[in-house]
Amino acid sequence: MTDHNKVAEFNEYREKMNKRILQDDNKILHRIFNLDTKAFMGGALDVRTKELLGLVASLVLRCDDCVKYHLESCNKAGLNGKEVAEALSIATLVGGTIVIPHLRRAYEYWDALQEG
Amino acid sequence: MTDHNKVAEFNEYREKMNKRILQDDNKILHRIFNLDTKAFMGGALDVRTKELLGLVASLVLRCDDCVKYHLESCNKAGLNGKEVAEALSIATLVGGTIVIPHLRRAYEYWDALQEG
Amino acid sequence: MTDHNKVAEFNEYREKMNKRILQDDNKILHRIFNLDTKAFMGGALDVRTKELLGLVASLVLRCDDCVKYHLESCNKAGLNGKEVAEALSIATLVGGTIVIPHLRRAYEYWDALQEG
Amino acid sequence: MTDHNKVAEFNEYREKMNKRILQDDNKILHRIFNLDTKAFMGGALDVRTKELLGLVASLVLRCDDCVKYHLESCNKAGLNGKEVAEALSIATLVGGTIVIPHLRRAYEYWDALQEG
Amino acid sequence: MTDHNKVAEFNEYREKMNKRILQDDNKILHRIFNLDTKAFMGGALDVRTKELLGLVASLVLRCDDCVKYHLESCNKAGLNGKEVAEALSIATLVGGTIVIPHLRRAYEYWDALQEG
Amino acid sequence: MTDHNKVAEFNEYREKMNKRILQDDNKILHRIFNLDTKAFMGGALDVRTKELLGLVASLVLRCDDCVKYHLESCNKAGLNGKEVAEALSIATLVGGTIVIPHLRRAYEYWDALQEG
Repeated sequence: MTDHNKVAEFNEYREKMNKRILQDDNKILHRIFNLDTKAFMGGALDVRTKELLGLVASLVLRCDDCVKYHLESCNKAGLNGKEVAEALSIATLVGGTIVIPHLRRAYEYWDALQEG
Repeated sequence: MTDHNKVAEFNEYREKMNKRILQDDNKILHRIFNLDTKAFMGGALDVRTKELLGLVASLVLRCDDCVKYHLESCNKAGLNGKEVAEALSIATLVGGTIVIPHLRRAYEYWDALQEG
Repeated sequence: MTDHNKVAEFNEYREKMNKRILQDDNKILHRIFNLDTKAFMGGALDVRTKELLGLVASLVLRCDDCVKYHLESCNKAGLNGKEVAEALSIATLVGGTIVIPHLRRAYEYWDALQEG
Repeated sequence: MTDHNKVAEFNEYREKMNKRILQDDNKILHRIFNLDTKAFMGGALDVRTKELLGLVASLVLRCDDCVKYHLESCNKAGLNGKEVAEALSIATLVGGTIVIPHLRRAYEYWDALQEG
Repeated sequence: MTDHNKVAEFNEYREKMNKRILQDDNKILHRIFNLDTKAFMGGALDVRTKELLGLVASLVLRCDDCVKYHLESCNKAGLNGKEVAEALSIATLVGGTIVIPHLRRAYEYWDALQEG
Repeated sequence: MTDHNKVAEFNEYREKMNKRILQDDNKILHRIFNLDTKAFMGGALDVRTKELLGLVASLVLRCDDCVKYHLESCNKAGLNGKEVAEALSIATLVGGTIVIPHLRRAYEYWDALQEG
């Protein structure tokens, strides 16, 4: 699979299933999805900082899909590889070596984003 | 892969490996597997409630295979989509947005079960 | 400390700090608190079932305060000791023996609620 | 509180509440408690190794009470401070710096056990 | 206990036990403690951003002591209440309502730091 | 995929991505990787015991890749199937039935190692 395809495939599945979930009229889920968008908008903290916070939270909680999503947003927000690597290193230190397999996949996806 | 195959593939791997584990004469594992069956039988709480408890525990702990297993049992116990969605929404609220990727896969598997 | 005081002390601190948090005008936190109330109201599933779901989610995630809160709501919703014990036993099986110290405190608080 | 009292207080509460839990006739909980005793008996692995496994599992899952319990069993099994420290260091590396507050309390309890 | 005492008591215990741990000549633990200091120094990301990352990692992993430590560093780094609240709100959204009891204690400690 | 290939594929990806991560000059990550090697060398505890500790930590934290890595090291260190099964059973008891899907994959990988 090419790097472009890895990124595209992730996003297509994500969008398809988000749409499916929101077809249901479950209000709690609708509002949680809504909050998820609002929480990462600029406020007292700017978008770049918030995306790094989302990235670190995702990595210490070891959620590959969440890491991918925030790596993509970090990339769009203009953060560079050194900045992202420092955030990832803090998450690996706090979360421990158990985080390393997720770190490998994070680097792989970051590289795919650069070439995508 | 068709919806039927998704469900069948999951169950075949699960059964094959459970058999493999129980070939070993490790008594602790044998008894844990045994308890797992007993704990979800009807008692003071009925099977439907217990399966929802298993589903929510599985989703907040973010175990895709456990979610699939309890979705299948919920389906067999006659719970409908609205009931399951409310249980999933409580798990997503308590467990946070980190749960959402598992929620996507839960909805996908639930849909496969309906059509399977 | 008497049983009544244990329950009262927990609730007073909880209310005082919730008030403090909501004094801030952070919209994300306001809405999360709001959702937390809505998610446990009766719908396709009744209040009793939802409170048991909240209890099991809290115990497998090993949060003493959340367990206490849902034990109190289970008690108010009219669930009896056998029903609560079955829910706690499922959580202990799914979450493992690491849950047992929280189970001890859960039983202690449940007893305080009965006598309080 | 003297070191002796710290150890005694922990054990008294633990025993009192274990007794309370087992007063209930919930079979799942009875069997889990039973398995917990059996799993740490000598077999293919000796008691010392098993207690170290229990200690490391408890520390990476960040359960203070479980850590205390296994420290006490390690002490009784004749493990020395260097051996215990190596097990704790592996748990801290794998589990990350988030484990450090539990490591502080582990050292404090280990010291209390030596003097108790 | 006055607010000043809450902060002082936390720091005294922390320092006393860190000293105790480092008395041991366990090299792994020495190096982890060392890394913990280095990782939060300014680099591609500044100290303020890194402390917010540490705070969010600590809150989603639900470690009260780690949250306190990073709140104190955030305060020293000149972050204000609105900035800290936004970071805490992201952690609560990602980590779920299970985080709320830790959020209460975080607000209490932040207030103690302001008055201390 | 043959058993040999399963093992080879895992190791190739692991090595490729470790190399990629260490290409970056992030000192924190370099040192964490370095510590990861040092912590499992023989000391007060021998290599066999340490690998079992790593295995149990990995399984209770439910990291498939970490489990595979330590199973491979356990195999190289000469631990037999009974010893490994006892360690896995302790992890399953402490970590709960949520661990079982990871246990299935652990057994599958262990079998692949035996035939590889």
